[in-house]
Amino acid sequence: MKLLYPTSLELNVDSFKGFATEYHPYNVKEPIPDDLIDAEILITWTNTADNLKDAASRMKNLKWIQSLAAGPNDVFNAGFSKDITVTTGSSLHDYTVAEHTLALLLNAARKFYEMRDYQSQGKWPGHLGGPQPDRPKGKFTSLRDANVLIWGYGNIAKALTPHLVSLGANVTGVARSAGVRNGVEVIDEQALEQQLKKTDALVMILPGSDSTKNALNKERLAALPDHAWVVNVGRGTSVDEEALADALDAGTIGGAALDVFVQEPLQTESRLWKTPNTIISPHAAGGRPQGAEGLISENLRRFMSGQELRNIA
Amino acid sequence: MKLLYPTSLELNVDSFKGFATEYHPYNVKEPIPDDLIDAEILITWTNTADNLKDAASRMKNLKWIQSLAAGPNDVFNAGFSKDITVTTGSSLHDYTVAEHTLALLLNAARKFYEMRDYQSQGKWPGHLGGPQPDRPKGKFTSLRDANVLIWGYGNIAKALTPHLVSLGANVTGVARSAGVRNGVEVIDEQALEQQLKKTDALVMILPGSDSTKNALNKERLAALPDHAWVVNVGRGTSVDEEALADALDAGTIGGAALDVFVQEPLQTESRLWKTPNTIISPHAAGGRPQGAEGLISENLRRFMSGQELRNIA
Repeated sequence: MKLLYPTSLELNVDSFKGFATEYHPYNVKEPIPDDLIDAEILITWTNTADNLKDAASRMKNLKWIQSLAAGPNDVFNAGFSKDITVTTGSSLHDYTVAEHTLALLLNAARKFYEMRDYQSQGKWPGHLGGPQPDRPKGKFTSLRDANVLIWGYGNIAKALTPHLVSLGANVTGVARSAGVRNGVEVIDEQALEQQLKKTDALVMILPGSDSTKNALNKERLAALPDHAWVVNVGRGTSVDEEALADALDAGTIGGAALDVFVQEPLQTESRLWKTPNTIISPHAAGGRPQGAEGLISENLRRFMSGQELRNIA
Repeated sequence: MKLLYPTSLELNVDSFKGFATEYHPYNVKEPIPDDLIDAEILITWTNTADNLKDAASRMKNLKWIQSLAAGPNDVFNAGFSKDITVTTGSSLHDYTVAEHTLALLLNAARKFYEMRDYQSQGKWPGHLGGPQPDRPKGKFTSLRDANVLIWGYGNIAKALTPHLVSLGANVTGVARSAGVRNGVEVIDEQALEQQLKKTDALVMILPGSDSTKNALNKERLAALPDHAWVVNVGRGTSVDEEALADALDAGTIGGAALDVFVQEPLQTESRLWKTPNTIISPHAAGGRPQGAEGLISENLRRFMSGQELRNIA
């Protein structure tokens, strides 16, 4: 049995050896070489569309693809046979996306984007420093006592929540089914509008799919208080960008810190480059899988013993 | 016995009532009114220099000044009699300075300042997003596994450390005496140079005094690795600003995130406005005392019972 692993990231291959399998590196930007084309297992990371399309047509023995991406749309779109099991890299990005999200929230609260604009002009933004009112009502100036609502309460939200709680935030989740997860109250979309009205910062961590398209629409944006920030680290399609730009221009929300967009790179003509209180981050939250070897090893063990794999797409 | 409390911040006066004392509000920007000039206790916050100078000459019964600032240089410089006990607002700024410091560290690691520069030009900073190497050696890109050295290991450092540790950082402190505080290894200045060589981010939380002047000097900056960031939220005088600007220009440190400066506002002619990888924050970390009522109440109880006050300067 042959396993192909990508050379597009550093992998400690020794930590997933020990199974009755041949291990071969491959270049994700080139067609799979002829002598590796009979491999049964393919691990993917930042493969080109051409590489995947070629693999889909020529790898006749392929049984399992382990992507290291949380949402492997590239693999889904390449035309692989439906008989091939695809597993995702969900969990490998939890820490790094959580760290970036925390950074976006703190940037919003502490207004570093505005400080930077002053710095660029060699000006001291005196109004942002010195004595300040402490957590004034109707402003988002600190995570302490802030109501943070996380829409999409999966692995990443679970990694993020303890940091927010230890900084003093009140965290609530939104998911398809209500309940208590890791001690956090999770509401469903029925209860969403009421909760939006009490929200200081809304963190979107929704996957990209038809069911999440424009989840944050005009009506829901209108339910947020004027000072509330929107942070999106899930997928751009989950936010109606025109409605968001309208709300930012009108000042009916406090601001938006965006790491994902409907089209990436963000189009030159997008209004979001210039809307007030907007932070543009270039899909930088994840992009560096952590602990890939552990997931590969565990799934390889399951695969060899005929058990169900983790993270089946 | 009369106590004067400032109207320059919101105080819940009821939460320090119950002692045999008269409570009077006063305006910190005006001379103390004649009918309050016999007060024994003065609480100060953002008083003008004129107000304090006037109070120092006219308040003959004054026994105790409770400042709400962590370092009440304004009170020290006003000419009050040496017989008057001055207590500081140390501890009231721990949370807010810790939050700001965490934000500065994450800004440095995730390069939001550079993202902002691209956004201002309507450009997508593609090199900062998409697939990235995970925690590459010789770069400060994440708090995870980063060696963070906190120089000045008091209340604020103790409030900051748990957040850094929970994000995966290795935290070491530096203080006048070595030891273990709240489970964190604290070294003394003898061991500093060796530790600087292993540091990814140096956080300065030193008070302003003759003994801390230029604590971070040319030689110590030279001991830091080329990728190491300097964060200063203590006092500007603890860093040799010319040596820092030289190191930034030469690229012998990774960057500097500065909330305090030798002269504030930062002078127009300062090189630090333009040095690479420099974040200028306008003394914004603290400036909003939290829990002032509790400190006032506890010190009032001690004062009334003849016990030693907390935070004697």
